[in-house]
Amino acid sequence: MPRFSVVLVEPQTSGNIGAVARLMVNFSIKEIFLVDPTNIDDEAEARAMHAKDLLEKAKIVEDYQGLLKRFDMVVGTTGIHTEKEKKFLRKAETPEKFANSIKNHEGKIALVFGREDKGLNNEELKSCDRLVRIPSSEEYPILNLSHAVGIFLYELHKVIGDPSVKNEDKISEASERERLIGNFSEVLEMVNYPEHKREKTEIMFRKILGRATLTKWEYHRLMGVFSQILQELEKKSG
Amino acid sequence: MPRFSVVLVEPQTSGNIGAVARLMVNFSIKEIFLVDPTNIDDEAEARAMHAKDLLEKAKIVEDYQGLLKRFDMVVGTTGIHTEKEKKFLRKAETPEKFANSIKNHEGKIALVFGREDKGLNNEELKSCDRLVRIPSSEEYPILNLSHAVGIFLYELHKVIGDPSVKNEDKISEASERERLIGNFSEVLEMVNYPEHKREKTEIMFRKILGRATLTKWEYHRLMGVFSQILQELEKKSG
Repeated sequence: MPRFSVVLVEPQTSGNIGAVARLMVNFSIKEIFLVDPTNIDDEAEARAMHAKDLLEKAKIVEDYQGLLKRFDMVVGTTGIHTEKEKKFLRKAETPEKFANSIKNHEGKIALVFGREDKGLNNEELKSCDRLVRIPSSEEYPILNLSHAVGIFLYELHKVIGDPSVKNEDKISEASERERLIGNFSEVLEMVNYPEHKREKTEIMFRKILGRATLTKWEYHRLMGVFSQILQELEKKSG
Repeated sequence: MPRFSVVLVEPQTSGNIGAVARLMVNFSIKEIFLVDPTNIDDEAEARAMHAKDLLEKAKIVEDYQGLLKRFDMVVGTTGIHTEKEKKFLRKAETPEKFANSIKNHEGKIALVFGREDKGLNNEELKSCDRLVRIPSSEEYPILNLSHAVGIFLYELHKVIGDPSVKNEDKISEASERERLIGNFSEVLEMVNYPEHKREKTEIMFRKILGRATLTKWEYHRLMGVFSQILQELEKKSG
């Protein structure tokens, strides 16, 4: 079964942190990281109710990119809905779809929630393997932070909460997918793929691997394909 | 389509009322009744954010049983889980099941939420046509009032939805993915990928594209990458 951690990036409202702690115990999620929280006061404790233990064990960190290295998969969240296929940075799946796609996998997964007012910035979105958005009204789509966390954890609990669910494929590690994307870039380089399209195409490749929940076995096989392509291109250019 | 109203019975925390108002606009539910609220202060308005209009239109009532007469169906909620069949008063279905069962019906439906600390009393439970409970952890099953409302409304919205929301991403067509897989095979051929591994690797590629639900835009971009690889390999072998 996958193991989930909640990551709040620069949460601004202390009450929200407490509410999130409560929701985590409500839905059996154990680990929380707070990246540069604005402040944590009595309101957090009041709203945590019977989840004060979890709140006390919250890990406060500064280095967001460093934190991500601890996980096999990083799942970002957004409140912004885009109709445009090309706005791939904001292209998101539903929590339900995500939960169903991940339930038979093993691995350490970060669920990342952005600031109350501005969400995650583009740099942060780029480093996510997948992106989830809660379907909501067009009139006012932006949920309060803790309610977004609650609905996401509820969906995970619904699908994964049942400990009787087994059968797991090992998810490829982040560093493995990084290598794969590295090889992909190298191929683009060697075939003179247009410079200005390269970054977007690499990000697209990362998102495809993420949405597919690439397994270890698939990683090894794709690596095999890429090395063979690279070898052949080098041989011919050499 | 059914029309839903939220009914909060003796809500004690003003902030929760505001949070519920916000959630209602988030999930396109228009009408709220407050039965004997303890107090409504600035905190309600602060947490309502862009849902202040709805908050102002909240109807405060005293006669709970009288209120119920306005509805075609009354749905209560409980945080207590019971396995015992005899405790029929607390026998509940999930929000998901409820939403699915009601989606093709018309009528006016009350979603009734009890007090933060004690929920609905036995008299109130008896007057409900149905009872819904959000599945949660055994360790600490009781959700904050506004989070329970949020999850319930989210499930309704998911199933019954926002008629304005369309399906956004155009999925690539089967014939397009077929072409992509054809190009992939051609690359394997040209780089002398081991014959005996080829079929499995092609199938794997197909599954990855499938699981990722490849979009049209992604299809075109991947086709671009493949043609460039093929072109380069041909040039060098030619």
